[in-house]
Amino acid sequence: MKKQIAFVSGLLALLLALPAAAQFAKPEDAIKYRKASFTVMSAHFGRVGAMASGRAPFDAKAAAENADIAMAMSKLPWAAFTEGSDKGDTRAKPEIWRDSAKYNELADKMQSELVKLSAAAKQGNLDALKTAFGPAAATCKNCHDNFRKD
Amino acid sequence: MKKQIAFVSGLLALLLALPAAAQFAKPEDAIKYRKASFTVMSAHFGRVGAMASGRAPFDAKAAAENADIAMAMSKLPWAAFTEGSDKGDTRAKPEIWRDSAKYNELADKMQSELVKLSAAAKQGNLDALKTAFGPAAATCKNCHDNFRKD
Repeated sequence: MKKQIAFVSGLLALLLALPAAAQFAKPEDAIKYRKASFTVMSAHFGRVGAMASGRAPFDAKAAAENADIAMAMSKLPWAAFTEGSDKGDTRAKPEIWRDSAKYNELADKMQSELVKLSAAAKQGNLDALKTAFGPAAATCKNCHDNFRKD
Repeated sequence: MKKQIAFVSGLLALLLALPAAAQFAKPEDAIKYRKASFTVMSAHFGRVGAMASGRAPFDAKAAAENADIAMAMSKLPWAAFTEGSDKGDTRAKPEIWRDSAKYNELADKMQSELVKLSAAAKQGNLDALKTAFGPAAATCKNCHDNFRKD
């Protein structure tokens, strides 16, 4: 079962690795989409965090499901940082487009930490979850500190 | 490959079938979450629709990917129609809570049509996509007509 789920996770990553080409009619559509995908990701990530930090009781099944959804969602926002979507109802800093190599590096790092978190959550023990959660949460903060307006 | 993807889709549905128990601190969090999950779903569903209707060139790989994401997203909003989240920044009609049997029936129907759409998209031909798209789109409209304010 563990092997099957790992296989699914790997294939999920493939399936969800969309072509980079922007597919939004207007910049505001891209902004709305990327905010929405972060909102969904963060809701599920937050539930894992509540368990990792002891704010919620540990439920191995819920931890694995929520970590998996957070991981799947983590593939989505990036295609929506399209040219021209730096203006409007967004806290995205111009540095995202100006220093895209660094931005992409942090985005990749976040995704790989969520893969690890999902794998850890599938082990079904709280200590593994705690160990993986910190570095994953650090990637959120690192990116927000550098690339998101207050 | 086709068989593998079908397997993944099936397991995805399982993985994403969250417990119905609400996990939102405040009604406005639930509202924000469900709107966000519909936003992401509809972006991907819309890309499939653009191909099905000839507004965009048919790209079998993109159709399959987008239909798969729409299907995965279709599992998410329902847990966020929590008690007390009928008020606020939402177009949800009170009938969702008052006639929840009918609402759940339409929600289930939408999810099953998206499973069919995803399967059709994996066939890699435009006719199959067109055939599956209409009934899937009809489930959106049916639910909006009955349960969403104008």
